[in-house]
Amino acid sequence: MAEHLGDLQRTHTCGELRPDDVGKSVVVLGWVHRIRDLGGVTFLDIRDRAGISQVVVRENDALMSIAKRLRSEFVVGVSGMVQRRSPDTENAKLATGEVEILARDIRLLNEAKTPPFQIAEDGPVSEDVRLKYRYLDLRRPRLQYNMGLRHRVSIAIRKYFDANGFWEIETPILAKSTPEGARDFLVPSRVHAGEFYALPQSPQIFKQILMIAGMDRYVQITRCFRDEDLRADRQPEFTQIDVEMSFATPDLVYGMVEPLIQELFKEIGPRYKDRAGGYTRVIKQHYRRLGDGGHTAIIELLKEGEQKVRLKERRPAAPAPAPAPTAPAGV
Amino acid sequence: MAEHLGDLQRTHTCGELRPDDVGKSVVVLGWVHRIRDLGGVTFLDIRDRAGISQVVVRENDALMSIAKRLRSEFVVGVSGMVQRRSPDTENAKLATGEVEILARDIRLLNEAKTPPFQIAEDGPVSEDVRLKYRYLDLRRPRLQYNMGLRHRVSIAIRKYFDANGFWEIETPILAKSTPEGARDFLVPSRVHAGEFYALPQSPQIFKQILMIAGMDRYVQITRCFRDEDLRADRQPEFTQIDVEMSFATPDLVYGMVEPLIQELFKEIGPRYKDRAGGYTRVIKQHYRRLGDGGHTAIIELLKEGEQKVRLKERRPAAPAPAPAPTAPAGV
Repeated sequence: MAEHLGDLQRTHTCGELRPDDVGKSVVVLGWVHRIRDLGGVTFLDIRDRAGISQVVVRENDALMSIAKRLRSEFVVGVSGMVQRRSPDTENAKLATGEVEILARDIRLLNEAKTPPFQIAEDGPVSEDVRLKYRYLDLRRPRLQYNMGLRHRVSIAIRKYFDANGFWEIETPILAKSTPEGARDFLVPSRVHAGEFYALPQSPQIFKQILMIAGMDRYVQITRCFRDEDLRADRQPEFTQIDVEMSFATPDLVYGMVEPLIQELFKEIGPRYKDRAGGYTRVIKQHYRRLGDGGHTAIIELLKEGEQKVRLKERRPAAPAPAPAPTAPAGV
Repeated sequence: MAEHLGDLQRTHTCGELRPDDVGKSVVVLGWVHRIRDLGGVTFLDIRDRAGISQVVVRENDALMSIAKRLRSEFVVGVSGMVQRRSPDTENAKLATGEVEILARDIRLLNEAKTPPFQIAEDGPVSEDVRLKYRYLDLRRPRLQYNMGLRHRVSIAIRKYFDANGFWEIETPILAKSTPEGARDFLVPSRVHAGEFYALPQSPQIFKQILMIAGMDRYVQITRCFRDEDLRADRQPEFTQIDVEMSFATPDLVYGMVEPLIQELFKEIGPRYKDRAGGYTRVIKQHYRRLGDGGHTAIIELLKEGEQKVRLKERRPAAPAPAPAPTAPAGV
């Protein structure tokens, strides 16, 4: 039943159509998110990573019969004309909610079985089911958001360190054991029978060489491996930001890391949806250094996209001085 | 003999002083690159990753006695005043060649043994010696350049794909065997006796999940592992750029990768030092697609910082058509 993509080319993502696009011929490619069949007219919500666009099918028997075959999570390519929605059907919750696509052609690219849970909602699903159907779980809004957030965090970190004169340097993964606290994962050597590589528990075994070699400032976002028993906050491999500087002093390190945290909060920090479906960013920059008055900054992830920073007493017995103005020196 | 860095803070790198800085009090931190003791006056070239600055020591007995103890590759902190060099001592080969630092204080931060080869020159040194003293080899101009080039390449790649809507997604390293052509490196599991992880020969085992999950476009600059016998162009681990797109067509892939190559050549491409010690970038963009007339673009690394692109006959028997104008559609 499914057709090939052929020469169908996406003109817009499902998240970008706006009233300015009214009258344009467009092609969107994506998943059927929701269907409402009202008899003479069918509404399809088409979803891709960028958002959701409403497609309307009416007064076209051939298209109506295709639309009737569609189910949630079918993959389609839709060609059509952007038109303004009538005021009573506008959807303020969607960035594309003022417009819709009047379908001219619908190409069914792939069918789908009925999903074991709702993709369109972030409702409770047991972890076993989520992991079994990981490819479906990752389609849900919360995990899509998290994957994008992770990307924005890592590109922001890289841009920050690049702007501050750090080179990103890759170091080997197959190497000698590093004297860290956990067990090593070992990789037997085929060529040298009885000998092993160790996977790095941290990337620091090459730090000495690189710093003595005059690399001056470098950074890695790199994988570390520790053969520890699983816990809530432990897994066999994890990713570390490794920042190395020659001629460092404590203030130089603070002065480099604190503005990074502030940059990250500006870039990816707390977002609250406002009424129009956009975002208002709330940046809270009040944190103090560990040891400055016995406080430490705790970042709480409250729920998707919302974060709260609170100060926590680190030494309840110590007299807390008045909060100092923060704003460390920019770099 | 060596002193601590203490509160000495670098104000400038060794590569950035210019005539505009004359009269400033500065601190540079770095390695003694060359020494010329002319009796009443001593010239020190101080080197860091960014370049070389000339320091002059004169009319100061205490400083002269410190300067006399210095040898190549000693690590120093120099405080002093930037002054214009006399016209006959200007050095057009150095970006900092119009100025020098009149030393006010020299702090000896670390001594060094006599290096087994010249750091200041890229002269021939046997590979055995270079690898034994890797931390010294990496101080030489060519390897410093290469490490910086590698950084500029990877940040340019990441910015390009970010601008084109790709998320960078990390996938696990400890996972199942991927059905590629080489031998896997295996990692025995401590928890599941007799079972193994395999290190990925390519990152594509998670591609299906991520594409079906609607990630749409993602990229990784990621490590791959293949247990093959060593050859000139093979080593146990290497780094791959993995680009994945949903709804892809050949033209979409060409249209994404070709401008990347052009961007990279603009960003990091051939550089020839000009007379003033700066760089002139020479960009050559003539390449054609494989199969378009039986040519393929060969990029030759001639020597440090210089590259030449030449077209090579792929099928000597085929009649070569006239070179077509290239310039693929920008994205």
